[in-house]
Amino acid sequence: MTDDFTRSQTFDIPAGYQELPWHRGFGRQVGPLFEKRDATGLTRAFRVEEHHTNGMMNAHGGMLMTFADMAWGGAVERNEDTWWVTIRLMCDFLSGAPLGSFVEGNGTVVGVADDIITVEGRIWSGDKTLMRGTGIFKLISRREGQQKPFTRAVQDA
Amino acid sequence: MTDDFTRSQTFDIPAGYQELPWHRGFGRQVGPLFEKRDATGLTRAFRVEEHHTNGMMNAHGGMLMTFADMAWGGAVERNEDTWWVTIRLMCDFLSGAPLGSFVEGNGTVVGVADDIITVEGRIWSGDKTLMRGTGIFKLISRREGQQKPFTRAVQDA
Repeated sequence: MTDDFTRSQTFDIPAGYQELPWHRGFGRQVGPLFEKRDATGLTRAFRVEEHHTNGMMNAHGGMLMTFADMAWGGAVERNEDTWWVTIRLMCDFLSGAPLGSFVEGNGTVVGVADDIITVEGRIWSGDKTLMRGTGIFKLISRREGQQKPFTRAVQDA
Repeated sequence: MTDDFTRSQTFDIPAGYQELPWHRGFGRQVGPLFEKRDATGLTRAFRVEEHHTNGMMNAHGGMLMTFADMAWGGAVERNEDTWWVTIRLMCDFLSGAPLGSFVEGNGTVVGVADDIITVEGRIWSGDKTLMRGTGIFKLISRREGQQKPFTRAVQDA
């Protein structure tokens, strides 16, 4: 049905991606999000749906920054037991992502100083760069009561 | 009821705030948000609910940046017909906002160069600063088909 257009797009995702099984909190609220891990590292993605849009029916800047945090921060994750917090995020908005776009993002570690990791990040859709920027993340110990907001299926290493 | 705890907090907001009537898109998805306009200018706010949280049950960094965009970008709004886009946002994460916190934020215009406006912003909860940073925003003409994602009740000027 026409009014299911964006809903069904959710599952029209490129090969290699699997849904991030966030079952609570903000990650669920802004989902669904996807990820794949291959020779180039970790890439995350989402399809722009109605609940991601701004007044121009593009992905809202807040959504792009949320996604940047998740996609660039992912670059510091060595395994399921890596815990990190964001210290600073700087985002340049270069282009918009209209409703229905498939948006991908990843980050490259460019600096490590003790437990502070600097990441250069990019977000794109097709051949168009939407955002570039820098994330500074701090590795932390798992804190009392802290839980990942998702239960991930067994993955390839 | 206990399981309505955070839901009922939604409407437990300080005097002077009214809910932003966002009825669609990302603004609705991450709401409810509130605002007040007084002698100090525009201040926006939200209560940290379950759907805003990260794995530590604090407001997710993506939510704080989304809110920064809305609260700091608000500093460039002269009236209901001001349209703007975000060029760059730089956010320093200083402290966390646990579930139930009432979070407020505003921005101060520190530079105007043609249609490019630089804003210094702050987000806080009680006497604790959660985030500080800089937003660079560009005023634009209303584009074809562009609509505010809310219908606002009549306000004081």
